[in-house]
Amino acid sequence: MTHPDTPVPIALAPRPTPLLEQAITAGGGTVTELDGARALVWDGEPDGFPEQLPDSVEWVQLFSAGVEKWFDTGLFDRHPNIVFTSAAGAFAHSVAEHALTLLLAGVRNMPEHLRATTWRQTEFFPRVGTLRGATVTIVGAGGIGRELITMLAPLGARIIAVTRSGTPIEAPGVVETIAAQDLPQVWSRTDHVVIAAPATPDTRHLIGKDVLSQLKPTSWVINIARGSLVDTDALATALREGTIGGAGLDVTDPEPLPNGHPLWDLPNAIVTPHDSNPPHLRTIAFADHVRENVARFASGRELLAPIDVSAGY
Amino acid sequence: MTHPDTPVPIALAPRPTPLLEQAITAGGGTVTELDGARALVWDGEPDGFPEQLPDSVEWVQLFSAGVEKWFDTGLFDRHPNIVFTSAAGAFAHSVAEHALTLLLAGVRNMPEHLRATTWRQTEFFPRVGTLRGATVTIVGAGGIGRELITMLAPLGARIIAVTRSGTPIEAPGVVETIAAQDLPQVWSRTDHVVIAAPATPDTRHLIGKDVLSQLKPTSWVINIARGSLVDTDALATALREGTIGGAGLDVTDPEPLPNGHPLWDLPNAIVTPHDSNPPHLRTIAFADHVRENVARFASGRELLAPIDVSAGY
Repeated sequence: MTHPDTPVPIALAPRPTPLLEQAITAGGGTVTELDGARALVWDGEPDGFPEQLPDSVEWVQLFSAGVEKWFDTGLFDRHPNIVFTSAAGAFAHSVAEHALTLLLAGVRNMPEHLRATTWRQTEFFPRVGTLRGATVTIVGAGGIGRELITMLAPLGARIIAVTRSGTPIEAPGVVETIAAQDLPQVWSRTDHVVIAAPATPDTRHLIGKDVLSQLKPTSWVINIARGSLVDTDALATALREGTIGGAGLDVTDPEPLPNGHPLWDLPNAIVTPHDSNPPHLRTIAFADHVRENVARFASGRELLAPIDVSAGY
Repeated sequence: MTHPDTPVPIALAPRPTPLLEQAITAGGGTVTELDGARALVWDGEPDGFPEQLPDSVEWVQLFSAGVEKWFDTGLFDRHPNIVFTSAAGAFAHSVAEHALTLLLAGVRNMPEHLRATTWRQTEFFPRVGTLRGATVTIVGAGGIGRELITMLAPLGARIIAVTRSGTPIEAPGVVETIAAQDLPQVWSRTDHVVIAAPATPDTRHLIGKDVLSQLKPTSWVINIARGSLVDTDALATALREGTIGGAGLDVTDPEPLPNGHPLWDLPNAIVTPHDSNPPHLRTIAFADHVRENVARFASGRELLAPIDVSAGY
């Protein structure tokens, strides 16, 4: 039994960084050696992780959002009495902010504005759109999709959230939740699409010729998930022919996008080189996550992103 | 005494448009002749406004946000028993959305991304910033500033609101409200600035060499108010020397920005030709405002944007 005012002893490995030390302290912990620590924050890959953990350790915080490789190490089986948490959700904010940026940049005609070298007001007036009252279909309502919903709500967008099961998402701005299998119904009433779903055999080329033909000449397609969800050739054709408004892509297929690829030159394509969650922001987001989880651990509350060993994620 | 289910008779002049007819109907009104109407929606300039209004008219909705020219006509004095409302506030949303777009486009390095024709991931990583945890100083907390605050809050920005009096603004995301006279204190702790204040002799060149020198090499300056609030030459110098990150300008001084002006070519300047509130969005926003005010009038609630005749606005 620890006095609530006593900092919780927490080990930080493999390299202690000042940012994470500060996060642990701010959360109500103190950085100690592994022996005697009640928790371990592991800011690294599986290589080098201690073969055996002391009995004092109750909780281990891992760095990655996806933990497949950690399952392969057998770590969880060796320590059935330890709670493991991942960084799932911690990195959603930056990617959602990037998606919002691409969408707004498209809807408000930033690419053409940036190319202009004269005051083309009358010409540009009709090309400045708004998200207010626009129907935005967000495919995938995991961490990124949910963050994006909170960012779009005050902009007055009408959000259609698409989830695997279709269980209603109760959040401001969401006018409808539909199951993935009902996606074909939504395209004709969609103004803009944001892809935030995992890459699976089912989602490959989710956005192809057929879907693109149902969108509007003002529609923007944003992809911050995985390149394979969009049929690149069909997209490039739609962009060239102007049957959609444009595309904002942080991920591409192929990736990296090769030099000379048509997407580099299409005036209504915004390509960012999978940098929606750059290392320096990842580091800060992980520190925030650690601070929050240390605070929760110190006060006996439920931890964020616990790994469900029996479920395998 | 009207039965609540009976539509309120409202005249629409000088030209009835389908969009405004729909707005009146959706708000619980019905479009009628001026004789016998309880209200008048006037979608035009002072020229042509009826010399005398029938006694049945209790309320007049005018189109403009600023109503100086209406005062000049003597209309309000001729009709002391009629409530007049303006469109003040109705157009704030689009301008705030534009400001957010410029700010995000800057912080997330959209200008450089749009120029790229190769996959420059490692090079771009450190140049992708975030509004999460960034201190954004918003100068002016009228309609536009307040809309922008609601849009910035879910992005995790720490907002310093600057108002004439410094009366605290209680809204999520606002960490501090300061009076305009205390502005010199905030620059060194500001990451980004948004100018949303009126042009007055006091605010002329509010952002000049001195302020710019206190900002950071990553700071963006956004101006959606009036060009005169920024010293253009000082700004161009700061942009050229990279002492600030960039500028997003919907208004300029001079305006229109002449061909060949340095701001057109600086890679860290985004210039939009005062199109943050284009006519087609203005029309839609006015219709929303009319619908809301008709609904309020029909149910006897307080109207939006009443003109205070004694105060002169």
